[in-house]
Amino acid sequence: MPNTNIIVAQSGGPTSAINSSLAGVIQKAIESNIKIYGSFYGIEGILNDEIVLLNNQFQKQKDIEDLKYTPAMALGSCRYKLSNSKKEFDIIINRFKQYNIGYFLYIGGNDSMDTVDKIAKYFKEINLDIKVVGIPKTIDNDLILTDHTPGFGSAAKYIATTITELIRDISIYNIPSVTIVEIMGRNTGWLTLAAGIPFFLNGLQPEIICIPEVPFCEKDFIKRIRQGITNNTPIIAVVSEGLKNKDGSYLGEDCKTGLVDRFGHTYLSGVGKYLENLVKKNIECKVRSIELNLMQRCSAHLSSKTDLDEAFNIGYDGLTNALKDKTGIAMVYNRISSSPYNITTSYVDVDLIANKEKKVPDKWLDIYNPKIQKEILDYILPLIKGNISIKKNEFDLPIYKIINKTL
Amino acid sequence: MPNTNIIVAQSGGPTSAINSSLAGVIQKAIESNIKIYGSFYGIEGILNDEIVLLNNQFQKQKDIEDLKYTPAMALGSCRYKLSNSKKEFDIIINRFKQYNIGYFLYIGGNDSMDTVDKIAKYFKEINLDIKVVGIPKTIDNDLILTDHTPGFGSAAKYIATTITELIRDISIYNIPSVTIVEIMGRNTGWLTLAAGIPFFLNGLQPEIICIPEVPFCEKDFIKRIRQGITNNTPIIAVVSEGLKNKDGSYLGEDCKTGLVDRFGHTYLSGVGKYLENLVKKNIECKVRSIELNLMQRCSAHLSSKTDLDEAFNIGYDGLTNALKDKTGIAMVYNRISSSPYNITTSYVDVDLIANKEKKVPDKWLDIYNPKIQKEILDYILPLIKGNISIKKNEFDLPIYKIINKTL
Repeated sequence: MPNTNIIVAQSGGPTSAINSSLAGVIQKAIESNIKIYGSFYGIEGILNDEIVLLNNQFQKQKDIEDLKYTPAMALGSCRYKLSNSKKEFDIIINRFKQYNIGYFLYIGGNDSMDTVDKIAKYFKEINLDIKVVGIPKTIDNDLILTDHTPGFGSAAKYIATTITELIRDISIYNIPSVTIVEIMGRNTGWLTLAAGIPFFLNGLQPEIICIPEVPFCEKDFIKRIRQGITNNTPIIAVVSEGLKNKDGSYLGEDCKTGLVDRFGHTYLSGVGKYLENLVKKNIECKVRSIELNLMQRCSAHLSSKTDLDEAFNIGYDGLTNALKDKTGIAMVYNRISSSPYNITTSYVDVDLIANKEKKVPDKWLDIYNPKIQKEILDYILPLIKGNISIKKNEFDLPIYKIINKTL
Repeated sequence: MPNTNIIVAQSGGPTSAINSSLAGVIQKAIESNIKIYGSFYGIEGILNDEIVLLNNQFQKQKDIEDLKYTPAMALGSCRYKLSNSKKEFDIIINRFKQYNIGYFLYIGGNDSMDTVDKIAKYFKEINLDIKVVGIPKTIDNDLILTDHTPGFGSAAKYIATTITELIRDISIYNIPSVTIVEIMGRNTGWLTLAAGIPFFLNGLQPEIICIPEVPFCEKDFIKRIRQGITNNTPIIAVVSEGLKNKDGSYLGEDCKTGLVDRFGHTYLSGVGKYLENLVKKNIECKVRSIELNLMQRCSAHLSSKTDLDEAFNIGYDGLTNALKDKTGIAMVYNRISSSPYNITTSYVDVDLIANKEKKVPDKWLDIYNPKIQKEILDYILPLIKGNISIKKNEFDLPIYKIINKTL
């Protein structure tokens, strides 16, 4: 008798949509009458046997719905980089045998796709019939071979909404002022482009948008700020956390905490603060910096319905493909058209995606060009469309679905 | 013929509800068939003649509704401290004569009530028949003689919702970590109490809540963090921006920018960052700090319906009282009962409110006491209740009402 059960786990940084993909996987498993296990803390839960049967906790459609609207990872996460040691693979294989696992679904970013790739290849090598499928997620939108990533649309919606509100806030005084808003994006500027939406849509000028793909020039930045605050205008500069100097070094090296995670990424912080000080040194006016911080990846109350629905489908379709004996694949979105917006899900070999990074395309770097701004709007706006209605308690605070670790 | 027109202005820091009070004033003026002018940038617009007729811009009920849901100040703001010079009063008096003003409504915090008080007293002194009424607002909830302030409920709702979401986000890793969330509150901890709501409601432990009313003790803080992160638990500490040491000095003096506004307040920043460094120095674990920053006062998409409705009514009633020849008063809320929640608006002499500050009461400083937590919930929860539906464009981004300065 073949191994028939499913195991699913989540990995990397949270998004508002990653639980929606989990909900899609669970939905498909339940429809297919298959046992589905959840591993807590990503691959680490498989290594450490922190595994729970999910079927019992999702007996009602309402449970699936509630999970769909819950931010962050209901199964927890990890940033564990799988070694290529036989010992570690053996633990995984034994664990899968223990739970009679035939299908492993891993929801995560490009680091997690590396884990999917390694496990799928090893299983093929040793002729082990367990299917391994990667479901993408990342607010950063930096995975290649997919039109966009699940989670990006909701983060983009939070950012565009918040910038719209901040514009109202900073416009109240009739004095020149500079507000620097720091947005997530270690090496790519996708989310910072979303911060441009309120400007692009309303033809507001001046806007200052700095992304990692364009080497930062102190002189240009100060010049643009100076132009902006003429006529007592308050201005907003939106900047990616990972801005780089012309020599490729990160801006404000000394603002960094110096911590490095297990994939070798340096934790960045403080580009906003760095630029705040830079402006203060050069221009006499009110300057503040704002970091949108974790709110941009967990503000589920502002999720994009399009994003959550798509994330659900890509999870559902991922398991569908695994059950059709596909393995070593990552699910992707293909855009059929922007207007009307229409996408399909399909898949690619996961090794084509793992450890690769999609940058903002060169032609979009001409960001102050209205034609380019229109192209950016055409790309992002469909992804943020649609509002969701989260479950609230009697005081109108959100209630989120918790998966019990010990059931 | 008596002076019959109305002038209204807004002052101090923004809230999500201050435009709702403005909408209430405009609504009453229009119902009463009286000309109403708006002064841009608070009292400065009166001094500098930046005044616009509002009736034309609010001909439809929809215009009033849209204004109600718009964050920050549609008429702009100022932090101008009125001198007591005859020269300045003369400019104001002449401006009021120029526009045939009989009623002046000023919406603002305790500094603005000082302006109301000065002008009302001067007018009485010289027997000038112009009524002056203050409409309170401040997210800080620090005005005395009122149950709470317009704007507090919406800020509290943003904070409680965001903390609920952040708890999900920081809980994903199975490692000890400390997240410090810095919340507005220069001298009072009202908003930081709101950050406790998700903990109080769910009996989550441990919670660390630090407010300016309780002298900060480094040793206690570190001890509490140490207790919290046992068992690999991620914890959140919520702290007011204006934490003070036992000697009354602000925490992390060297984190301050050193800027002082015209009322002598020092601009604070960086208590979160200061505590982040303090924890890092003492405990080996992941530490981050998050500043909720301007979002807590301008996130109109998360406004409390109760707050906006009350703010509208207090504006409406403020003008009603002015038209009944009341002057030198500030409007206030009186709570009749918490369950069912019921308040009325009334008024007090503005000099009783101006320049005074309502602190969190002494008996509530025993904040880890469940009985006290219940009292805090009874007080705050009714204020955050009810969701609003803001106007959105076709891409589901908010559209806000703009008052045209030049019409």
